[in-house]
Amino acid sequence: MRGTVLYGPRDVRFEERDEPKILKPTDAIIRLSVTCVCGSDLWPYRGIQKIEQPAPMGHEYCGMVEEVGSAVKTVKKGQFVVGSFCISDNTCPNCRAGYQSGCQNLDFMSGAQAPYARVPFADGTLVATREVPSPDLLPSLLAVSDVLGTGWFAADAANVKPGSTVVVVGDGAVGLLGVLSAKQMGAERIIAMSRHESRQKLAREFGATDIVSERGDEGIARVKDITKGVGADSVLECVGTLDSMMQAIRSTRPGGSVGYVGVPHGANLDLQQVFFTLVRLHGGPAPVRRYLPNLIKLVLDGKINPGKVFDLALPLAQVAEGYRAMDERRAIKTLLQPSGRN
Amino acid sequence: MRGTVLYGPRDVRFEERDEPKILKPTDAIIRLSVTCVCGSDLWPYRGIQKIEQPAPMGHEYCGMVEEVGSAVKTVKKGQFVVGSFCISDNTCPNCRAGYQSGCQNLDFMSGAQAPYARVPFADGTLVATREVPSPDLLPSLLAVSDVLGTGWFAADAANVKPGSTVVVVGDGAVGLLGVLSAKQMGAERIIAMSRHESRQKLAREFGATDIVSERGDEGIARVKDITKGVGADSVLECVGTLDSMMQAIRSTRPGGSVGYVGVPHGANLDLQQVFFTLVRLHGGPAPVRRYLPNLIKLVLDGKINPGKVFDLALPLAQVAEGYRAMDERRAIKTLLQPSGRN
Repeated sequence: MRGTVLYGPRDVRFEERDEPKILKPTDAIIRLSVTCVCGSDLWPYRGIQKIEQPAPMGHEYCGMVEEVGSAVKTVKKGQFVVGSFCISDNTCPNCRAGYQSGCQNLDFMSGAQAPYARVPFADGTLVATREVPSPDLLPSLLAVSDVLGTGWFAADAANVKPGSTVVVVGDGAVGLLGVLSAKQMGAERIIAMSRHESRQKLAREFGATDIVSERGDEGIARVKDITKGVGADSVLECVGTLDSMMQAIRSTRPGGSVGYVGVPHGANLDLQQVFFTLVRLHGGPAPVRRYLPNLIKLVLDGKINPGKVFDLALPLAQVAEGYRAMDERRAIKTLLQPSGRN
Repeated sequence: MRGTVLYGPRDVRFEERDEPKILKPTDAIIRLSVTCVCGSDLWPYRGIQKIEQPAPMGHEYCGMVEEVGSAVKTVKKGQFVVGSFCISDNTCPNCRAGYQSGCQNLDFMSGAQAPYARVPFADGTLVATREVPSPDLLPSLLAVSDVLGTGWFAADAANVKPGSTVVVVGDGAVGLLGVLSAKQMGAERIIAMSRHESRQKLAREFGATDIVSERGDEGIARVKDITKGVGADSVLECVGTLDSMMQAIRSTRPGGSVGYVGVPHGANLDLQQVFFTLVRLHGGPAPVRRYLPNLIKLVLDGKINPGKVFDLALPLAQVAEGYRAMDERRAIKTLLQPSGRN
């Protein structure tokens, strides 16, 4: 088969690779229905995160089970599954506490921008649907795997409750789905910080009640205006820079919470500054596995349509163009469609 | 009267000062029953925190109301009161949310290492007892004002619940009262990190079930051993350095919480490191006013005896020796006893 490999900054190749095989009895092999490019793939693509050797790319996935190892019990050949980008056993104390992204056997999915992929710890990582879903639901089910699960965790970590006032920093796909998540959790007011018209539009569609296009001190002043001088109850940080983190913290009321899910790059936080804000911080790689059953149900029931963040769909073979479009901000997020064995 | 003024590093003077007067209708003047030296007073005493001009010291206090301004409604002359080290109106949205240390009219108490002190926003800052308490309860009631309130906030911010496994980093008075607080909140296992025998003893008396004297990687390994490889549910950070903060974070399980109350000095946190731990951080200056009614009741009912952290009592006039004893770790915390107008 052919799959996606990153060789270095802006060097994405779609090339011949071995088809994945069962290596351990807890593995499953899946045939990808759809896959995509993640915002976090852009860190190594842009050279901000170094890679040591050619890296098989792709960690968001859903598809049909082709084969399972002898120890796999909860999924079987022919089922449609959605999995988390974090590989987890779902039995260790950290998993049982709902933090599968801190699993004692944690690994990260890779190589899913391909027609087939191996999923370790299949029982602990995958959730099967009762029936094979209709094709129009595939983009939304794919979104559950990471980008929605991550936006959902941002809102959960920021302690969004019915009636909350929420700010979302970052208008990438995660931020936009953070808006959707906050709305689902009953937030009354959702302020999306965005400077791009197409993203503002989608934010409003997902539930944003206010748009703030200013950043830095001006952006914070606008949030304070909207919240009667107090700041927001919950702020979702969906970027990962020091600026966006400070924007988030300074937009929060004392005793409020920041949920941060943008992988921090070069963010050295002066803790004394944070101390006097009295803001709660919680974040990290999202424990998507915890949310999978609920989020899959919301999609299948037609309650949410997170697949709308995919504003570009390409054949998998054109994956390099998919990266370029996101890098140049021509696309929010690129859906990739495998065809046969490519 | 004579009161305490810090002129520069290790230059504490007990000198003639004007007696405080009502300046605003919301003020009260109190006669201190007892007062004390705070661990945080040592930052400027040691020159780590610069002072611009001679600073009247002291922010922990309890005593008799001598006079109130015309707008004060909830306390009156002749009552015994305990107040928070944070001055708050207790009516703004931040106060109503329980974060009086983020009050929109926030100020910090000062000048309480003296026979008399002025307390602004008396209604929002002070709580009166029904009767004048017996003298043996004074040290514990004084502790409520800051050092216990701060330890209590550390435990609350670290989300201590019945059955929790708790680690306390720092064996100063705040850390020791963090142990007491965790015990009161129903923690099952309380691991005190301490290298000093007298403090270990008090920690055990307050409820510590385990003592870890190692620090750094070794200390973390010991905590992991005790918690079956998982880490603690809740960790109280009661020091304020980068080392102690990382010690706290790395001792916490994924999804667990660090409550940090040591004022951070030189603590630049690499947020990417924190991100992958999945640890929740909450801290800041303690909203003691929120806890005052409950903590005063626990002391008056004889349920807790936080005054035990005072292992040195001196006449107020010997305040300089009180600072020296704490600086040289000869004392955990110094109680100061005013006598008349000194």
